[in-house]
Amino acid sequence: MIPSPFLLYLGRSADALGIKTSRGLAEFRREDCLGEFRHDDCPQTLGLPRLTMEEAAAKGARTLVLGIAGAGGRLPDELIADAALALEAGMNVAAGLHERLRDQPKLASLAAERGLELFDVRDPPPNLNVGKGIPRAGHRLLTVGTDCSVGKMYATLALTWALRERGVTADFRATGQTGILIAGGGVPVDAVIADFISGAIEQLAPARPDEGWDLIEGQGSLFHPSFAGVSLGLLHGAQPEALVLCHEPGRAHMRGIAGRSLPGLAECLERNLEAARLTSPEVRAVGICLNTSAMDREAALRLCARTEDHLNLPCTDPIAFGVEAIIDRTLCPAPSAFSTTASN
Amino acid sequence: MIPSPFLLYLGRSADALGIKTSRGLAEFRREDCLGEFRHDDCPQTLGLPRLTMEEAAAKGARTLVLGIAGAGGRLPDELIADAALALEAGMNVAAGLHERLRDQPKLASLAAERGLELFDVRDPPPNLNVGKGIPRAGHRLLTVGTDCSVGKMYATLALTWALRERGVTADFRATGQTGILIAGGGVPVDAVIADFISGAIEQLAPARPDEGWDLIEGQGSLFHPSFAGVSLGLLHGAQPEALVLCHEPGRAHMRGIAGRSLPGLAECLERNLEAARLTSPEVRAVGICLNTSAMDREAALRLCARTEDHLNLPCTDPIAFGVEAIIDRTLCPAPSAFSTTASN
Repeated sequence: MIPSPFLLYLGRSADALGIKTSRGLAEFRREDCLGEFRHDDCPQTLGLPRLTMEEAAAKGARTLVLGIAGAGGRLPDELIADAALALEAGMNVAAGLHERLRDQPKLASLAAERGLELFDVRDPPPNLNVGKGIPRAGHRLLTVGTDCSVGKMYATLALTWALRERGVTADFRATGQTGILIAGGGVPVDAVIADFISGAIEQLAPARPDEGWDLIEGQGSLFHPSFAGVSLGLLHGAQPEALVLCHEPGRAHMRGIAGRSLPGLAECLERNLEAARLTSPEVRAVGICLNTSAMDREAALRLCARTEDHLNLPCTDPIAFGVEAIIDRTLCPAPSAFSTTASN
Repeated sequence: MIPSPFLLYLGRSADALGIKTSRGLAEFRREDCLGEFRHDDCPQTLGLPRLTMEEAAAKGARTLVLGIAGAGGRLPDELIADAALALEAGMNVAAGLHERLRDQPKLASLAAERGLELFDVRDPPPNLNVGKGIPRAGHRLLTVGTDCSVGKMYATLALTWALRERGVTADFRATGQTGILIAGGGVPVDAVIADFISGAIEQLAPARPDEGWDLIEGQGSLFHPSFAGVSLGLLHGAQPEALVLCHEPGRAHMRGIAGRSLPGLAECLERNLEAARLTSPEVRAVGICLNTSAMDREAALRLCARTEDHLNLPCTDPIAFGVEAIIDRTLCPAPSAFSTTASN
């Protein structure tokens, strides 16, 4: 386990999606977050006290979390320099990038000298096997998306808690760095060797004999040309009984690819159902989650209602409006759910 | 480059598909293959002289190629022991498994002692980027399959040579261990980090300004629950203008998964075209390649003719009957090609 309390790193990030790991910790483990570190030109804040490395260490912060991410998971020089400052101030450092902290000689030697630790959250587990797609016991729900960073993790967490409030055993299965930091475990599926994508998810959510649910955090999108392979292997490995489609209304283009528009909800859902049937022939859609944080409440409610009518599925913003209707649909399948003939 | 001549390893393999790397070298680089190594209980042969490690080294073999593979790419103890014997006899050792030769202390120290080399063909290139799916110049053809090991590499090589015989510049782009050993280069796409599948293929077959063709070897199948993520990322990264569907008639079940049947040709082709359109909206199917090596010639010809009528696409066994009709269709698109309305 990574020692808390945490200092959350924002650096110079001007990209709201780029700090999603820091934001996730600030939202879901706020009691473990002492403050945020940002440079003077960083326009963002998580509403936590702004602290220098020394101030944070003096207040008792145990670990600097480099909770920012760009495509490719590189570790730029400035992050290395700031991580070194954290070590010099006496804090451990955690990151979830493809480039590992421990592979930076400067950081490795500083940590060794001072008896501190480097946590590379994106290390996949060893000894993975290839997936087999053999039917296995248990209830599993997977969130899928029209794009990256549309709220799949938030939706999955909200659904997990809502099931628990109904008295249903439910476990959040994290597949990305933020989810893993929040949950304290999981599989960073985009960091496994390509041959083992579906196998990693079969291992993350193995057969479960009880009546409980595994709620598996989706990644990427079948429609994202960078990451669709990850999304498809995850979908096959999850062998989900239920799919929830996540989307952020108003997004101008696919994350990281200017000019590429997002798929329609019906098309995206249909393609996911079609692909999921390879390992889960009876898979069904149980709801739509919209991230409406950029909309006013009335407009958001109207959009949810319209989407619900259009797709014949419960539609909600899981943070703003809860997920009760989706839980109802998950636990009690409706006969007239979304079908392949829904228009786009 | 891996020094030839080669000694090809068959071990104890009783599985014709399990020795496909050794067989590929025996077929396509026969002049570089001195002999085969097999244990007494191995029922298979490539028709090369059976040699012990010592005999092969004495005849001048420079490298033992561990050209066998099971799902997961593990390196069992017996392979390690046999690789050690090869080193002791004075040969280098090459393998294309996920588990690396160099990570075996015994092999690493033996190689170092004797000034020999270990070649891990499945090492992905460093510094890959994520794919972007941005339109790029050049003609690209990709082979896709109903399953693993159905002849995609053979078909791709045959198409490459046939294009060259027509005077068209054409390059084979290898994506698997066998293809890489034959071509002397390529990207082992199933061994890259999952986030970089499509990016690795964009790097393998970048924009080319000439009128030449890149012929990209496909991997796996969109219908294989172990590997579909690799197949989808490869498809998106390839951004193919032309697809060739490969299939082995009569296969009882998907490779490695008893009881799972293969998809129909029309369904498989349609799903590949649909997915390919994400990065290549004008993609078209140009032919079907059947591996009919287990059928008699007349039955094979009848099956090709029937398949051709059914799918309205040229259909051939690339090894038995050549690929001229597919080349015609590739270079001169027909207006009435396979469409989404073809029955299964």
